[in-house]
Amino acid sequence: MNIPIIPGFRFSTVAAGIRKDGRADLALAVADAPAVTAGVFTRNLVRAAPVILASERVRAGGVRGVLVNSGCANACTGDAGLEAALTSTRAVAEALALPEASLLPASTGVIGELLPAARITAKAAELARGLGPERAGDFARAILTTDRWEKVSSCRFGAAGGEVSLLGLAKGAGMIHPDLGLDGPPQATMLAFLFTDARVERATLERALMTAVDSTFNACTVDGDTSTNDTVLAFASGASGRAVSEAELAAALGRVCAELARSMVADGEGAEHVAEIRVTGLASTADARQVARTIATSLLVKTAIFGRDANWGRLLAAAGRAGVRFEPSAARIAIGGVELVSGGLATGGDADARATVELAKQEVVIELSLGDGPGAFTYLASDLGHGYVDVNASYRS
Amino acid sequence: MNIPIIPGFRFSTVAAGIRKDGRADLALAVADAPAVTAGVFTRNLVRAAPVILASERVRAGGVRGVLVNSGCANACTGDAGLEAALTSTRAVAEALALPEASLLPASTGVIGELLPAARITAKAAELARGLGPERAGDFARAILTTDRWEKVSSCRFGAAGGEVSLLGLAKGAGMIHPDLGLDGPPQATMLAFLFTDARVERATLERALMTAVDSTFNACTVDGDTSTNDTVLAFASGASGRAVSEAELAAALGRVCAELARSMVADGEGAEHVAEIRVTGLASTADARQVARTIATSLLVKTAIFGRDANWGRLLAAAGRAGVRFEPSAARIAIGGVELVSGGLATGGDADARATVELAKQEVVIELSLGDGPGAFTYLASDLGHGYVDVNASYRS
Repeated sequence: MNIPIIPGFRFSTVAAGIRKDGRADLALAVADAPAVTAGVFTRNLVRAAPVILASERVRAGGVRGVLVNSGCANACTGDAGLEAALTSTRAVAEALALPEASLLPASTGVIGELLPAARITAKAAELARGLGPERAGDFARAILTTDRWEKVSSCRFGAAGGEVSLLGLAKGAGMIHPDLGLDGPPQATMLAFLFTDARVERATLERALMTAVDSTFNACTVDGDTSTNDTVLAFASGASGRAVSEAELAAALGRVCAELARSMVADGEGAEHVAEIRVTGLASTADARQVARTIATSLLVKTAIFGRDANWGRLLAAAGRAGVRFEPSAARIAIGGVELVSGGLATGGDADARATVELAKQEVVIELSLGDGPGAFTYLASDLGHGYVDVNASYRS
Repeated sequence: MNIPIIPGFRFSTVAAGIRKDGRADLALAVADAPAVTAGVFTRNLVRAAPVILASERVRAGGVRGVLVNSGCANACTGDAGLEAALTSTRAVAEALALPEASLLPASTGVIGELLPAARITAKAAELARGLGPERAGDFARAILTTDRWEKVSSCRFGAAGGEVSLLGLAKGAGMIHPDLGLDGPPQATMLAFLFTDARVERATLERALMTAVDSTFNACTVDGDTSTNDTVLAFASGASGRAVSEAELAAALGRVCAELARSMVADGEGAEHVAEIRVTGLASTADARQVARTIATSLLVKTAIFGRDANWGRLLAAAGRAGVRFEPSAARIAIGGVELVSGGLATGGDADARATVELAKQEVVIELSLGDGPGAFTYLASDLGHGYVDVNASYRS
């Protein structure tokens, strides 16, 4: 993997024995100087200890980096969980000679298990020694849980001659249906970390991040379950010395987050397909989002995609239970560009057979036009097959 | 199966060739005289032709019976679908020398396929000849689709010495998450038909039916997908000559519908378990229903039950995304009576092992107490495993 170096940031990983399989399970990203930081966290009412602490520390400012562990969500662990998050970030901050509150915790793994802080403190010095600007790939690997591959995306943006870099590192792969907000209270889980050397104000970074997240992470689903630990953090080192506009930043974040979200959905537990569900013609964006979301989380739709069955009746039935008004007799439905329904009725002929061919592809576009209104929204969804059942019927064993 | 005879009703079935497997796929229930009839239909915006026609005819009154086919939902079939429903009920009504509008259609099967009305009209005379008061069991069998068994429940109710009978016949087994309403606009699908010889006013029957449905069919789910064809019809022949109170009727309907709903969930596609999800302690019944419903439709919860994994973190995470306020630190969670969480924290010890034993049982009670409010609601859900994927990845082939 060719991962660009982002000036101002260093990365490190170590195997701390939190995971049972001995893999690297502790990852650190640190900025050379205080970084402008924005964070969005799950709006699940049940917030893991690292989410509670990280959101407080982002608000307080002066952030220098993030300490991520896989193998344990440290969620539903009460005061002891908060203490474990405090202890572990304190130990690593001390090894880096940084203020305790300048490190943000992030965790992913089983809910209800207490983070074994002592295993982290024992590795704090080794983790600090290992820091290097070229180790982002190791970071991307250590944060994975049931993921099959690393999620990495990067781009260059900004005015010609004054370009800056953006790097995104993320993980999926189950309990994926993010509902992230700036102000929100916050198992597998989605985590994403964004690093740029652009110079930017914090309020600008926050707005640009929320804009990017809302049409990417907040518009994708694997299994419809929103985690207690979902966290997206954006760090701007300013090391390039180059300022960017909010529009440029939001576009770059949107591009990188979109690529990460697509990779997460493609790597959804047991997933074989990514379906891009495009809903148009409704009264509002909110209506279109609601219909797209209902289709994206429909078990019958997801098993049909797994089975390569161009079962458009399930698409229309899911749309019909979304609580949004539309005229079914105006519906147009296409799979992979093959029109299956027009004016609410099956087009017939060989459309079904041709759509089945499209469904054999790894990526498939599903279009529902449900009227002539301006409301449109696109959701990404994985299919659902035996692999998902295998992973999740025995996740803890 | 020991199915009681309900005075005033006769049943018949025939193989009309709508299903591919040659099984009986056409079922008729007829009252000897006009029956007081109430119907509740799916609130899915997309309504199948038989639902549109049946709801109109229930409102008009003078109903004598219902003609049910499996193998084809006749949904999303436009004017041709309505014409097919009209043609087929007309042919059978003529064979019975009844007014055309006195027969209600009901269909279940694949969405988007037009009902082959000619196959039904060809069998109308045979169907009429086959009527008998003892053939309710045949009726219960002919309406099945992916079901593994018939759903039958009956009871006697009313004052001692003045008792009347109630019989319920239903089918599941997929696209099961009914949202039925009296006024609502209405694939596998849930269908339920209730027959009593009690004497009752129509408004009373409607109210009692809606009350019964709301805590039974409207509180159960297999896959979270609400069908275009869900239909519950209640017929009262009055043949006993005995009047019953609304309370007696609602209780009897509630009892029979609860048994049918439990059988439907137990027979959910691929299901091995029925989970009874009891949520208590919230501010209102609506809040408790919303939390119970979110847990009941959570893929991670359903796969954990399939895997016999006492993964209470998934229960709490699902509750947390339901959009309802509660204090996670007050949560108490028990599976099969084994307390896993108290005061928001794991109870530890051997609770996990003992709960796992409880999860091996076919029926399991999952309790979440989330505060000290009066709001409580119970939902029935099936687990989700490989069988569901098998059935639904190849439903149409």
